[in-house]
Amino acid sequence: MLMKSAGQSLTEQLADRFAERIGTRLLAPGARLPSVRQCAQQHGVSASTVVAAYDRLLALGLVQARRNRGFFVREAAAARAGGAPLAPRHALGAAPAEVAPLRRAPVNAALLIRGMFHSDNDKPQPGMGVFPPDWLTSGFMAAAVRRVTAGPALQAFSLQYGEPAGDSGLRRALAKKLAGIDIQADAAQIITTVGATHALDIVSRSLLRAGDHVMVEEPGWAIEFARLESLGMRILPVPRGERGPDLEVMARYCELHRPKLFVSVSVLHNPTGHCLTPGSAHRVLQLANQYNFHIVEDDTYSHIAPESATRLCALDGLQRTIYVSGFAKILAPNWRVGYLAAPPRMVEQLLDTKLLSTLTTPALLEKALAWCIDQGQLRRHAQRIRVRLDQARARSVTLALQSGCHFAAEPAGLFGWVDTGVDTDALSQRMLDLGYLLAPGALFHARRQPSTLMRINFATTQDAHFWRDFRAVRATV
Amino acid sequence: MLMKSAGQSLTEQLADRFAERIGTRLLAPGARLPSVRQCAQQHGVSASTVVAAYDRLLALGLVQARRNRGFFVREAAAARAGGAPLAPRHALGAAPAEVAPLRRAPVNAALLIRGMFHSDNDKPQPGMGVFPPDWLTSGFMAAAVRRVTAGPALQAFSLQYGEPAGDSGLRRALAKKLAGIDIQADAAQIITTVGATHALDIVSRSLLRAGDHVMVEEPGWAIEFARLESLGMRILPVPRGERGPDLEVMARYCELHRPKLFVSVSVLHNPTGHCLTPGSAHRVLQLANQYNFHIVEDDTYSHIAPESATRLCALDGLQRTIYVSGFAKILAPNWRVGYLAAPPRMVEQLLDTKLLSTLTTPALLEKALAWCIDQGQLRRHAQRIRVRLDQARARSVTLALQSGCHFAAEPAGLFGWVDTGVDTDALSQRMLDLGYLLAPGALFHARRQPSTLMRINFATTQDAHFWRDFRAVRATV
Repeated sequence: MLMKSAGQSLTEQLADRFAERIGTRLLAPGARLPSVRQCAQQHGVSASTVVAAYDRLLALGLVQARRNRGFFVREAAAARAGGAPLAPRHALGAAPAEVAPLRRAPVNAALLIRGMFHSDNDKPQPGMGVFPPDWLTSGFMAAAVRRVTAGPALQAFSLQYGEPAGDSGLRRALAKKLAGIDIQADAAQIITTVGATHALDIVSRSLLRAGDHVMVEEPGWAIEFARLESLGMRILPVPRGERGPDLEVMARYCELHRPKLFVSVSVLHNPTGHCLTPGSAHRVLQLANQYNFHIVEDDTYSHIAPESATRLCALDGLQRTIYVSGFAKILAPNWRVGYLAAPPRMVEQLLDTKLLSTLTTPALLEKALAWCIDQGQLRRHAQRIRVRLDQARARSVTLALQSGCHFAAEPAGLFGWVDTGVDTDALSQRMLDLGYLLAPGALFHARRQPSTLMRINFATTQDAHFWRDFRAVRATV
Repeated sequence: MLMKSAGQSLTEQLADRFAERIGTRLLAPGARLPSVRQCAQQHGVSASTVVAAYDRLLALGLVQARRNRGFFVREAAAARAGGAPLAPRHALGAAPAEVAPLRRAPVNAALLIRGMFHSDNDKPQPGMGVFPPDWLTSGFMAAAVRRVTAGPALQAFSLQYGEPAGDSGLRRALAKKLAGIDIQADAAQIITTVGATHALDIVSRSLLRAGDHVMVEEPGWAIEFARLESLGMRILPVPRGERGPDLEVMARYCELHRPKLFVSVSVLHNPTGHCLTPGSAHRVLQLANQYNFHIVEDDTYSHIAPESATRLCALDGLQRTIYVSGFAKILAPNWRVGYLAAPPRMVEQLLDTKLLSTLTTPALLEKALAWCIDQGQLRRHAQRIRVRLDQARARSVTLALQSGCHFAAEPAGLFGWVDTGVDTDALSQRMLDLGYLLAPGALFHARRQPSTLMRINFATTQDAHFWRDFRAVRATV
């Protein structure tokens, strides 16, 4: 519901909200705006406010009126509203059109991502990819920052560029942490990055060139698809099952396209929550050896993973695998500390790419994180969150089942992969009007396709109110 | 001089030092190692230590002995020593070979850059690109960090991803700062980045695709050449003169190659210190309009620039220009806070590229920086440094002239562009043995070529000892 504010009239607020959706293409060209009555009801405003807001959109050239049919988003309105699809049109490293016809990234990825950054209300956000802030609150974070910035320490590391590979204390702490999950890496094999996203970006830029084929898991994470596409890569989607990627499909891709890289979330796969079995891991590595491709293992969810989880990097011993992880899911999304661990022969090349992209990374947060790891604070914090998540998951699963949803994958980790029985694109649009951000299934496909699935965050779907609203809206889709 | 240490024998230290130089290609394949006597003298060790170290290099396959002639670096030794040229061989977005034959980046760029990060002695480093830490020391930096992390503030911004465009307080402060140099930009046109390097990377990735032609200034900064090359771009070097880029060469390039972008350091150009004249600026913009290319103006040295400096972005009003700057040169190289200001129509696309490369950027340092700007601390700090630099420059210029150097450009700003009369590649190698990092002229050319020029940092060349060593070594080159 819109609220009166000092700076903006209700009309302006409503018009801006629609303009933003048109800009982000949530409302696609040709889409119909809700009727005046419907809109007034949804937003808790008078019909005259809606009419005034629609007039404003007309004047901006964002919508057109069709007699007796209502208001429709104009073609090319998105560009006028300031929006752009996530995959830039003049995308980086895009090969000439005849070499690698660029596929469009799912347009709604932009919306979901922007939504991840600022929710404008206090409702739980079932589409979010991270824990809500109150889950991550800790006492030790402030202590860590005070510790590493006390006295002359702050200036000592601030006034020089710092180590190209990242703070050596953190890299030693990470090497120890990796040894704990059976991945033997020397601190010299580790490079810190601006979050796991930057690590994945560095790996792609170092190992691939435009037009190369890359295998990704499907369903999978839209940002990864969008990034590879913006780099001009050709994406080969491999169905991800309960035990791991579909090995027959992989073998066929290998024969046909000789892919250079396989990007995999082995443990607590996003969005299904599946974990790779040891048998599958072994056969994936056999394929990699046979067809000479590299694997980047994105272990973003390692902090909440089962202890027995199988990792490709552990089996392979970082020979043709590169390990990537970060701390956005467990400590502080905004600290942007991620890292990669690579085969020794690749380190220099990856380091050069880091230098060309950001030179170095800020030591303050790396040192603070190292302190949290060394003191055992992070480990205990992760334990607490795992316990809380187990409880939340149990409750969310019950509520989802009671709301007539089915789980397309056995519930595990942070995310549930849920079949709603209705088109989740339409569902997401309606739920957004009520202030809920959903993650519709289409977002997780390399080629956008209608889906009745959605990803839910178990930490933000324990609220019976959400499920009541969900049931009411689903009935109208 | 080598020092005895607990962990490593002198032999090991010496062998490691040579291995590192071979790895970074400072000692190129075929290069001759110093004679045993020479080496012993240079490093203050016994002849037997040198012999043992050379034996070690032999055993590692890094060098070969030729009878009666000494030791020589073996072909392909660099790879064995773990080194790699700065431009990755499997470079990001590199177009197929027949489309864009990749040029090799100057190999010594890697050395210079690595040298920038950790100097292993206390000698002033004339090749450095930044002020020495003691120049940047300030009282307000710690206050700023305390201020923005006090109480619940730290968790409030740490536990969510944060604003995609960067901290809004900083963007408002930057918009005001830009207005002060006659560049009118709304906070919404500004995107914060991980240093100016990241800003330049985002612009290239958003506006260019592999195989595109890009005009750069020559001499210019090696990292910029290397980054564009790693993205698969074709570099068109434009001679940079006293008044600005060579307009005739630019016009010819435009006719022949239709470049998409011109990368320019208008003010206090690196390495010459030249500032663009208003007349040249006007004609560059006329060319940009006529041939429809964009300009990215790298204003890294803005904090020490003359007040009257002409900027393309000011004349153009951010129509086809994009402004880039950062704070590594004035506040804290390791904070890695940079930014860009772009035409409104480009903002969404640039923002998407930022999201794909690092998601968001750390708010802690952005907020601390905003405080330093808002409180006027940064402005006063910059004033103090300008006064000190003027004094340092006067002294360095006198010493350089007394040492028989000539200035190839009128001394201004942080850097002097100095003609030494001898090959500066050879000079740099010899000076490194004495612990001095130089920036030889060859580094500033898109195609590596022998040069008698070098770039000096006025803040680190006020020491008469350096110039005495310089004169002694130059006599032997």
